[in-house]
Amino acid sequence: MEGEGQVRALVFDEGLRFTEAPIPEPGEGEALVHVRLAGVCNTDLEILRGYMGYRGIPGHEFVGIVEHSGNEHLLGKRVVGEINCACGSCCYCEMEMPHHCVDRTVLGISGRDGAFAEYLVLPEENLHLVPETVGDEVAVFTEPTAAAFRILEQVRVSEGDRAIVLGDGKLGQIVAQVLWLRTKQLVCIGKHEWKLELLRRHQVGTALIDDLEQIVIEPGADVVVEATGSPEGLEHALRLVRPEGTVVLKTTVSEDAALDLSAGVVNEVRIVGSRCGPFRPALEALGLGTVDVRPMITEVFPLNEGERALERAGESDVMKVLIRV
Amino acid sequence: MEGEGQVRALVFDEGLRFTEAPIPEPGEGEALVHVRLAGVCNTDLEILRGYMGYRGIPGHEFVGIVEHSGNEHLLGKRVVGEINCACGSCCYCEMEMPHHCVDRTVLGISGRDGAFAEYLVLPEENLHLVPETVGDEVAVFTEPTAAAFRILEQVRVSEGDRAIVLGDGKLGQIVAQVLWLRTKQLVCIGKHEWKLELLRRHQVGTALIDDLEQIVIEPGADVVVEATGSPEGLEHALRLVRPEGTVVLKTTVSEDAALDLSAGVVNEVRIVGSRCGPFRPALEALGLGTVDVRPMITEVFPLNEGERALERAGESDVMKVLIRV
Repeated sequence: MEGEGQVRALVFDEGLRFTEAPIPEPGEGEALVHVRLAGVCNTDLEILRGYMGYRGIPGHEFVGIVEHSGNEHLLGKRVVGEINCACGSCCYCEMEMPHHCVDRTVLGISGRDGAFAEYLVLPEENLHLVPETVGDEVAVFTEPTAAAFRILEQVRVSEGDRAIVLGDGKLGQIVAQVLWLRTKQLVCIGKHEWKLELLRRHQVGTALIDDLEQIVIEPGADVVVEATGSPEGLEHALRLVRPEGTVVLKTTVSEDAALDLSAGVVNEVRIVGSRCGPFRPALEALGLGTVDVRPMITEVFPLNEGERALERAGESDVMKVLIRV
Repeated sequence: MEGEGQVRALVFDEGLRFTEAPIPEPGEGEALVHVRLAGVCNTDLEILRGYMGYRGIPGHEFVGIVEHSGNEHLLGKRVVGEINCACGSCCYCEMEMPHHCVDRTVLGISGRDGAFAEYLVLPEENLHLVPETVGDEVAVFTEPTAAAFRILEQVRVSEGDRAIVLGDGKLGQIVAQVLWLRTKQLVCIGKHEWKLELLRRHQVGTALIDDLEQIVIEPGADVVVEATGSPEGLEHALRLVRPEGTVVLKTTVSEDAALDLSAGVVNEVRIVGSRCGPFRPALEALGLGTVDVRPMITEVFPLNEGERALERAGESDVMKVLIRV
């Protein structure tokens, strides 16, 4: 910790800069976490383009050590953390949907400084202990892996169901590995031969999106997960899904897209938005190695090179960029 | 029937014109139906704007008399008809989704001349006898009423669920009356005071869309049915539905819309495309009067004034326009 209660952090305001910021103060029921390693997600890049109008310290994927907490079971422990912080009293909290709390803050995304800093603060109830067998470089993937497991909470995927994952990026890779736990009738469609190669090592079928433009697939897939991060992804998904099938939308972008949803109406497709997910099955899968994330790590930057880290994360020859604090 | 096997019909090619066309020839298992009354639907108006690239005789809502058929139970009977004609052998027919047959024709919409003519042809299995108690002016609403009942097949709507229907037009009115059978926590939001007045007679709550632009409704509705016929409807629906709630999309339009679906992703909304529905509950509800359509009839035109009928159907002081053949 720097002098005068200041910590080193990446702050996004007009632009992103490495600077000093006040050390965050834990409130009632909150813990102060010393961040060890943080992951760069496409949402961080979208935030830099204006998504959510967020200003502050970005970053929501992390692993760290609890330095202050009223809960002795957490103190000194290595943790990962759920990113949504609920008010506990709004209509959605009362409806037992705290993830959708009207007054929620979201770590590094909305109203709460994030993980690209030496310290962050989260409610103790958001924290999960990381088993010793799960290294920092793996544990830092818990949040996006949980987001992939969210799909299985929302959509029934059974052995033999035909599934397609659109997008071979960071999230698409994890989603494909998670769906693979349920069905082997799975193809990941992407833009990059070298990224798809990573999935082929796990026996997941792959195809290049360019090869598919002219092909009609009949019958269409039972489930298509749209994880391209691009506004055009949904139109591809609507082409690939069967009538009365399900498209899971994982992409949030800062721009509008010109969309023709008529095909979705005529084919009676179900489109399901999907966001954050359960940490327990994610940590378990990472611990067992049934979801294998290490090969996705392209580069690790120190926090003081964080601006470069986020630039690098947006380049096409990159998969996961981590920031070591 | 005119001489030389010609019939009077409205044909859409470059534009819509009243003309003579060859009398349609029933194939194996098909019936020739003498149309008595046809309804103008927004889809017909969209077709005139280029939707589906359809050329031919439009019209898919009708009631008529079976004039030729190999099935003696149908011959001479008054019928309404389902509009999708399946091939019986494609992958979706084999998956028992004939409505989504790859090679289907759709009456007056795709590959099959429609109801704005003296005669039409449909497979016998598509036809439903109309009870004597249901007059032509009511029976002609069977197809859109079935489309409204489709929602209840796709989405569980229970007593006490909060539902919103967006759109006070022809389809919105019927959808509201059908949802009302399941829940009284129902509001129809529209643009026209006089159209909403029709629903208030059935005790359905109403609101003007202009009053809602600035209001945040919390908690949002469990179910929102988008039946505005306008590409902006979905954005309104995403504002009005609760997190993890359901938006049913009924609108098909011929144009793309600039859409930001991020709110739907973040709120994990389920968007369900919805098209054609079951004729039996529709005919039953029309017979019992639990769905009351007569007040929606604005004007009835003879077939030879069909061009004017379709113009009129697009005007804002109009609800349902019928064409008497």
